[in-house]
Amino acid sequence: MTATTPHPVSSRYRDPEFTTLPRTNLTVELQLAHRSVRAFLDAPVGDEELTTLVAAAQSASTSSNLQAWSVIAVRDPARRDRLATLAGDQDFIRRAPLFLVWLADLGRAARLAASQRASLDATRYLESTILGFVDASLAAQNAVLAAESLGLGTVFVGAIRDAPDAVAAELHLPDRVFATFGLAVGVPDPAESAGVKPRLPQQVVLHREVYDDSDDSLIGDYDTRLAQYNAEHSRSAGWITPVLKRLADRDSLKGRDRLRDHLRAQGLPSQ
Amino acid sequence: MTATTPHPVSSRYRDPEFTTLPRTNLTVELQLAHRSVRAFLDAPVGDEELTTLVAAAQSASTSSNLQAWSVIAVRDPARRDRLATLAGDQDFIRRAPLFLVWLADLGRAARLAASQRASLDATRYLESTILGFVDASLAAQNAVLAAESLGLGTVFVGAIRDAPDAVAAELHLPDRVFATFGLAVGVPDPAESAGVKPRLPQQVVLHREVYDDSDDSLIGDYDTRLAQYNAEHSRSAGWITPVLKRLADRDSLKGRDRLRDHLRAQGLPSQ
Repeated sequence: MTATTPHPVSSRYRDPEFTTLPRTNLTVELQLAHRSVRAFLDAPVGDEELTTLVAAAQSASTSSNLQAWSVIAVRDPARRDRLATLAGDQDFIRRAPLFLVWLADLGRAARLAASQRASLDATRYLESTILGFVDASLAAQNAVLAAESLGLGTVFVGAIRDAPDAVAAELHLPDRVFATFGLAVGVPDPAESAGVKPRLPQQVVLHREVYDDSDDSLIGDYDTRLAQYNAEHSRSAGWITPVLKRLADRDSLKGRDRLRDHLRAQGLPSQ
Repeated sequence: MTATTPHPVSSRYRDPEFTTLPRTNLTVELQLAHRSVRAFLDAPVGDEELTTLVAAAQSASTSSNLQAWSVIAVRDPARRDRLATLAGDQDFIRRAPLFLVWLADLGRAARLAASQRASLDATRYLESTILGFVDASLAAQNAVLAAESLGLGTVFVGAIRDAPDAVAAELHLPDRVFATFGLAVGVPDPAESAGVKPRLPQQVVLHREVYDDSDDSLIGDYDTRLAQYNAEHSRSAGWITPVLKRLADRDSLKGRDRLRDHLRAQGLPSQ
């Protein structure tokens, strides 16, 4: 008998009955091993890596090939410092050499329309705003995996939606362009102990033919597994309590309850 | 001199000055080779593959670990037929053996809150709705790449947002759950000629430090390249004309201008 490395699906679920996949390969195993990295070495991420990340991002699907997104690569330490302050004062944004800000971008099409005196009224509707968020998300997820395939680590920063007006000013965002989320990118510090966070059992998120909430009953087990994982990483709590706290009321949104107002201010009224 | 296969980045951009990547690997090349597949062999996609796709999807990042998404695997031909009719009568939904419907799911948290008599008022705001769309998108993009790594092909179907009320009824969607987009999955028909669609030049979507629209001037070249690609695939038009048409007015949204009303009907008022 030889010692073998456990398949990454076992860390992903921490379910003793789900320790391997019948259909697997190196790309899938890279995906399964994803973790958010918040501690980076003092090492640059070069333009060569950035080119690969953007090429991967652009290879994702985009609704009707509209490509309704852009990305801003922020390296300037002073700008990262200001963005960190705006985004919940998360210090890792100051320490990551590269901070990517993903934009829902209906502005490019709007500038084309203006140059041809064409109407672009569809950008007034929530559908178009959401299309921009979805396009940016598909692109960003490809960039995350490309980064990981190059040995880099990343973490998403939704908190740049806490103060969208200041973020828009900082990044010179034009009409109909909105900063959806940030992504800190760097070389992971091997001394950081962050592990692979276990997720809900597959049965809870995967439904067959129609929505079926009967497997909600497994959430209690998951709460226990996540509490165990968190305890190993010097954190407390399982899943249920933080989820309920995070979604309890307007205050728990930390200003993001005003998202529609901010979108409107950027020319996306999201009707 | 030996014949070599061109790097997939050359098809992705069709830019004679951008034919390789200094930092590349098999995962990146799989991403770059992505194409939407709309013709499938009469071959099943098994539960083993589905398990891998969902494990990959669950490995994507999720805001605050809320996991505010679910997926419904639709295999029943009669149900796929009805969904195809609702989604712009796109026949490939009938022919793909597996149709995945990705859901923004705040309902799971709402059911937990109800069982504990806790408030969940934050789900009333657009921020939470968009969080569900972003979570579903990150998950789906991982599933797409996992599918491609197993030799399967996929295509996104945004048109299930054309008739959200009928889709919600068909899929028994409960309170605070919304169908964001579909994904047809199957074994690609090798007889289909669909190629890798070229994207905008990197300079147009990648900004440095701040947003900069000066590279919009390259869009004309791209329009020509895409027209060339389309001509090779028996289609016409470049990029600018279809984009302007797609976003011209309310009518071009094919009913999706009512997205906010439909979200409200599903318990997501998106204030």
